[in-house]
Amino acid sequence: MRQHPLASSPAAQCADVAHRYAAVRAATEALARPLSAEDCCVQSMPDASPAKWHLAHTSWFFETFILERHESGFRPFDPAFRVLFNSYYQGVGRQHPRPQRGLLTRPSLATVQAYRAEVDARMQRLLAQGGLSAEVAALLELGLQHEQQHQELILTDIKHLLWCNPLWPAYHEEPALPDGGAVGAGGWRNCRGGLVQIGHQGADFAFDNELPRHSVYLQPYALATRLVTNAEYLAFMAEGGYDEPAHWLAEGWDWCRAQQLAHPLYWRQQGQDWREFTLAGAQPLAPHQAVAHLSYYEADAYARWAGARLPTEAEWETASADEGDGLQQMFGVLWQWTQSSYAPYPGFAPAPGAVGEYNGKFMVNQYVLRGSSCATPAGHARASYRNFFPAAARWQFTGLRLARDS
Amino acid sequence: MRQHPLASSPAAQCADVAHRYAAVRAATEALARPLSAEDCCVQSMPDASPAKWHLAHTSWFFETFILERHESGFRPFDPAFRVLFNSYYQGVGRQHPRPQRGLLTRPSLATVQAYRAEVDARMQRLLAQGGLSAEVAALLELGLQHEQQHQELILTDIKHLLWCNPLWPAYHEEPALPDGGAVGAGGWRNCRGGLVQIGHQGADFAFDNELPRHSVYLQPYALATRLVTNAEYLAFMAEGGYDEPAHWLAEGWDWCRAQQLAHPLYWRQQGQDWREFTLAGAQPLAPHQAVAHLSYYEADAYARWAGARLPTEAEWETASADEGDGLQQMFGVLWQWTQSSYAPYPGFAPAPGAVGEYNGKFMVNQYVLRGSSCATPAGHARASYRNFFPAAARWQFTGLRLARDS
Amino acid sequence: MRQHPLASSPAAQCADVAHRYAAVRAATEALARPLSAEDCCVQSMPDASPAKWHLAHTSWFFETFILERHESGFRPFDPAFRVLFNSYYQGVGRQHPRPQRGLLTRPSLATVQAYRAEVDARMQRLLAQGGLSAEVAALLELGLQHEQQHQELILTDIKHLLWCNPLWPAYHEEPALPDGGAVGAGGWRNCRGGLVQIGHQGADFAFDNELPRHSVYLQPYALATRLVTNAEYLAFMAEGGYDEPAHWLAEGWDWCRAQQLAHPLYWRQQGQDWREFTLAGAQPLAPHQAVAHLSYYEADAYARWAGARLPTEAEWETASADEGDGLQQMFGVLWQWTQSSYAPYPGFAPAPGAVGEYNGKFMVNQYVLRGSSCATPAGHARASYRNFFPAAARWQFTGLRLARDS
Amino acid sequence: MRQHPLASSPAAQCADVAHRYAAVRAATEALARPLSAEDCCVQSMPDASPAKWHLAHTSWFFETFILERHESGFRPFDPAFRVLFNSYYQGVGRQHPRPQRGLLTRPSLATVQAYRAEVDARMQRLLAQGGLSAEVAALLELGLQHEQQHQELILTDIKHLLWCNPLWPAYHEEPALPDGGAVGAGGWRNCRGGLVQIGHQGADFAFDNELPRHSVYLQPYALATRLVTNAEYLAFMAEGGYDEPAHWLAEGWDWCRAQQLAHPLYWRQQGQDWREFTLAGAQPLAPHQAVAHLSYYEADAYARWAGARLPTEAEWETASADEGDGLQQMFGVLWQWTQSSYAPYPGFAPAPGAVGEYNGKFMVNQYVLRGSSCATPAGHARASYRNFFPAAARWQFTGLRLARDS
Ligand SMILES: [Fe+3]
Ligand SMILES: [Fe+3]
Ligand SMILES: [Fe+3]
Ligand SMILES: [Fe+3]
Repeated sequence: MRQHPLASSPAAQCADVAHRYAAVRAATEALARPLSAEDCCVQSMPDASPAKWHLAHTSWFFETFILERHESGFRPFDPAFRVLFNSYYQGVGRQHPRPQRGLLTRPSLATVQAYRAEVDARMQRLLAQGGLSAEVAALLELGLQHEQQHQELILTDIKHLLWCNPLWPAYHEEPALPDGGAVGAGGWRNCRGGLVQIGHQGADFAFDNELPRHSVYLQPYALATRLVTNAEYLAFMAEGGYDEPAHWLAEGWDWCRAQQLAHPLYWRQQGQDWREFTLAGAQPLAPHQAVAHLSYYEADAYARWAGARLPTEAEWETASADEGDGLQQMFGVLWQWTQSSYAPYPGFAPAPGAVGEYNGKFMVNQYVLRGSSCATPAGHARASYRNFFPAAARWQFTGLRLARDS
Repeated sequence: MRQHPLASSPAAQCADVAHRYAAVRAATEALARPLSAEDCCVQSMPDASPAKWHLAHTSWFFETFILERHESGFRPFDPAFRVLFNSYYQGVGRQHPRPQRGLLTRPSLATVQAYRAEVDARMQRLLAQGGLSAEVAALLELGLQHEQQHQELILTDIKHLLWCNPLWPAYHEEPALPDGGAVGAGGWRNCRGGLVQIGHQGADFAFDNELPRHSVYLQPYALATRLVTNAEYLAFMAEGGYDEPAHWLAEGWDWCRAQQLAHPLYWRQQGQDWREFTLAGAQPLAPHQAVAHLSYYEADAYARWAGARLPTEAEWETASADEGDGLQQMFGVLWQWTQSSYAPYPGFAPAPGAVGEYNGKFMVNQYVLRGSSCATPAGHARASYRNFFPAAARWQFTGLRLARDS
Repeated sequence: MRQHPLASSPAAQCADVAHRYAAVRAATEALARPLSAEDCCVQSMPDASPAKWHLAHTSWFFETFILERHESGFRPFDPAFRVLFNSYYQGVGRQHPRPQRGLLTRPSLATVQAYRAEVDARMQRLLAQGGLSAEVAALLELGLQHEQQHQELILTDIKHLLWCNPLWPAYHEEPALPDGGAVGAGGWRNCRGGLVQIGHQGADFAFDNELPRHSVYLQPYALATRLVTNAEYLAFMAEGGYDEPAHWLAEGWDWCRAQQLAHPLYWRQQGQDWREFTLAGAQPLAPHQAVAHLSYYEADAYARWAGARLPTEAEWETASADEGDGLQQMFGVLWQWTQSSYAPYPGFAPAPGAVGEYNGKFMVNQYVLRGSSCATPAGHARASYRNFFPAAARWQFTGLRLARDS
Repeated sequence: MRQHPLASSPAAQCADVAHRYAAVRAATEALARPLSAEDCCVQSMPDASPAKWHLAHTSWFFETFILERHESGFRPFDPAFRVLFNSYYQGVGRQHPRPQRGLLTRPSLATVQAYRAEVDARMQRLLAQGGLSAEVAALLELGLQHEQQHQELILTDIKHLLWCNPLWPAYHEEPALPDGGAVGAGGWRNCRGGLVQIGHQGADFAFDNELPRHSVYLQPYALATRLVTNAEYLAFMAEGGYDEPAHWLAEGWDWCRAQQLAHPLYWRQQGQDWREFTLAGAQPLAPHQAVAHLSYYEADAYARWAGARLPTEAEWETASADEGDGLQQMFGVLWQWTQSSYAPYPGFAPAPGAVGEYNGKFMVNQYVLRGSSCATPAGHARASYRNFFPAAARWQFTGLRLARDS
């Protein structure tokens, strides 16, 4: 990732950083607050992780990549955590197997909370010493961005767990998605093609996968001014969307048939009506809201049925920069599938050291999602951000903006 | 199952029954006491159930089979529990899928404890009314015996869960198995053959699968006076026990190779030494203790290697009656695999009603184990008791007593 | 197996044996005659083997167990065949993996036929020398019995393969099962219980698993005088047989649901009518024929639905001896599931040497079938014969005779 | 695909087309000539098809897409073939399940050869009538190109089948790959970036996925002048290439570990030496030949280890046009993995009608390979050709040309 800029005076900087650190860490804990120790412990599928694991792993990141290297007299909170809460960094040793994260009833949630508290105290002590090297400042920022990514995952993973419970219990009382009712009829926004630049620019933080900024040549295209709604998706279903192979990628059709799918992940039909599981429990399906929790296969099938296609990530990013005002729901509603395979930008170089495993090694058989979702922490989104998931993933806050040639 | 005898005076009987009910129920809760809510919630494999599920299911049994039918003005504690905590009784409706028992973070452990308390209060009220019909008395006894079976399962299942945790945390502080050091060198006890009777007799409780008592013709045989020890099993391993197909049933060999097994379930080699995971955590392997957690395949392979065989259940039961004093470790150490497939006794009739699903429908591809284990509740064992598990099961407290023709 | 009796004069004996050898071998080849090289090469599932493999493996048996040990100057036809055509004899080396038998397009069918011819020529030369030791005579007989077993498997396996072909091509022109129309209404035959003897007796050949003859105590029972018919099985289906868990063993119900089964293996509904795939291709379902290709689970479910049960193997064998005339279809129609798990008789000892792997190592999780089928070679059946298959097996010629307590 | 140009006089055109049709069809049959009916029938894995199926399916293509629509009085050779030999065209009805192609012992190879002969006769009759519409001419050319693709698949699939046979039988006597010995030390060829055009141009045939030609912006880059050799790949292995996760994509590492891979697909170690299975049977590994049968994962891992990367398809195609002379082994040795996910070109439109299923529906989770291989028919390759396979595919003639930024 890019190094963090260090322009302000050292003392002011320390206070700022310490404050930001505290705020991000507190936000994670706030997310876990509605959850019992039981809720925090269980893993509903191999792709998801327990909230307790997220709480610990984000602390492990600071302990492993900052404290262990920069705290004098460093001693680990618990040496076993080095393996238990390592996600996938081969460069810092072994990992507890991902599908078994939910078997860790010990350490308890209380112990993990104590782990967080100790890491926080020691990080604050380190930060208070001032004089952070650019390297440590960059790792710190990476750790905070990382923690924000896991904040969204806490919500997607707990949503999946609670949905697995036949009682469909609520996580909290608020509606899961902002009401899309004001969004209007939608339409198309034409975008000029030509030689454009994409990728992160400027001194702010970005992940290594957003760099380098580089030229891409685009044909003229159009983007839908808003996301596809539940009502529109119901029309696709009503016209046999899940029954007609002509709409589907061959692999998507096989996936769909093998699981006998006929609607988005969190939907359930009740008589003639549809209900949707949300973080606030079961809700009547809101027709004007953006249809959520689609796989790439479903998004692509809908687009073909609608005579459109998925945007490329370069199209999305360029339009976001050029046509920002004319495009609604670019951020803060749902991540938007693009037809772009997750691949290195020309000239891509992973960050040096163990954190170089952050992004690059996942660049195969995944597709880029752009924008951000209702579950993305404030301040975490930007136009150059590249989220990525496999084509079959449905449990993330994923939606669909149509594109077409123009 | 057999009807409970009702010989004593009604009032005395009520107090007895109420006292027994309270004692059995309290014993279950005592077993859960060392466990956190997290420990109680997680399921380590489809064969095992969370402790919370055991706590709830045993209460569901009384609620469904006694309160619902015999309490005036019955209302369920929570109607959803009828499905959530039904194990396999098709006669009383649907069941929550077994492999997903561990996803039920709700109801919470506290709610399940409240469920237990309410069921107990209502059961005690019912019992205090006196005048239990023979049918209800029989169901009550069945419910208590059922609860005792789940007491052992709480221990086997939590042992498996804690073993899955790389920290090998202890459930409690006591050693898991009584020290077998005093057992001595072992030897053989010859048993006459001929026409014998097996199956439950007398007025005490027995499960339907122990009946009817019937004649069996036995050839003369001998049983080992004690169980096979860890030291003896180590000798089998040292002589290539897990590497030589000649010792194994063909299916056992395939099972062993597919999983690349080389030692019993809970063992781990550390340098030259072996350690064993127990309910008290990791322990040095005790050479004179009975070797535990064997599958049928392993027990059979050891027996062939030793020039012996597994006993039949009729041999075991007959010897238990005739030679009780000469045979050590028949009860209270480990369940003992027999070569007898779990099948109906001649004239077997399942109990009438939904509880008729208790035993009979499992009579295929399982093998009978006799005796009882260190985890079996006091008073629950008897010579005619037929425990049963599939040949690959290793997480129960299973061991091995050799037999041979004589 | 039992040693072959050697009572007649050596020269006469040689001629007899040579003649019998030639006849059995020729019968195998006759079975393969309607098949193309392609038909003979393909394996339809791991449980089945290609006809070419059967042709080669039965020759391998004579080459490995007789020629290699008793032919002077023995040289293998092809050293690679030792592994390619070894089924499961660990004592004579490695085996080509069973699920990959169908990948052996080489050696060709013509080469395998040449292999058979050479083994036959060399065997006949050996037999012509006379003076067979009792051991060789016994191995020869075992080889011929073994070949007869594979004759039946050639038919069951090719039937499965041709059924997998959507064209449902015929193997030959004759109907697969003798018409059961003459069998009549059926009924029960009561059988005395008491102490009986089962197991092979006399000097004729028997497999090791039929020995030793031993005493068994039976309760009084009754056997159905004929097998369950297609019409009767249709009634079970019409009454929701495949939809009602109460009829099924728990494991059978899971098996049935997982595969969404609703009828026997080779049946197909066409409008209101049922058609059955037979070795003569598709045929209208014959109502009076015995229902065929049932799994143990289906046989058991039908029996429960009918208020009956499966016989034990001791009941079947005893009735066969005592009531032979009163019981129809004991032999030559379909193998009959018993409720007896395949287990060693008391005092069982496997044959010495590598052929000791013939039977004993399969004695777990399989069920005994008695009688014989329309595909069993003439002269191969006897009352003490113990066939065995796993409970889910459906592709054998398996049927159902009811039993009940009396 | 592009329409075929029709510039020459009608009569000359007919003769040309008829001659070309005959030549392509004959080439397919020549490939099958070394194979027995058994070789042609068996399917070694779901990804591969039997040669007999290829022979029939390529004929089905002409029968279904040309004869059925344009032959007067059309009657199918066998109506069942419409389903049996449909690969994946949902638009023309159902398909026999791909993993069961190898169960079709009927129709026989002889029948399939008769099918080819009849289709050929009828096609020639149609062609002799002259006056082919542009549509039919285009379908004819598509059918011939399609047949050439299957010619390569006949070789890749039969190679896999024969390799599965422990005898490693040869398909023919010639070496599988041209000796790479003359290729030399290799090196890098620098390529200017900038705005380039890729995609098919001109009037010759191209598949729809090669169109439209469009602009792409490239950064400056370099391509290796030849493919990676066996000797170079052995160096990667010797330095622990298969043991060090840092070289691998995360998904590649998991794939590699799950299958415990340590070398390319068709290699086998014999003492210190390596042997490679080829269409001519086992051969000593030729150090200067291009390393073959790599997955995308292995190609990518080697490239990382070598400090390089895979080329993009735009880089490959541009270099092929601009630097053709300076780059060896671009065609005719091995297909070359690119890092480009198989995706539609901007403005891509599938061909109209059922043949529109030819390419577009596979555009997810596959990677583009460029060039051609030793198994590609002469005349079938071109610089804009886009072959594609999943990242785990190893049984194709796949190799690796390195790229790097410059
Ligand atoms: Fe992380
Ligand atoms: Fe229970
Ligand atoms: Fe055999
Ligand atoms: Fe094709």
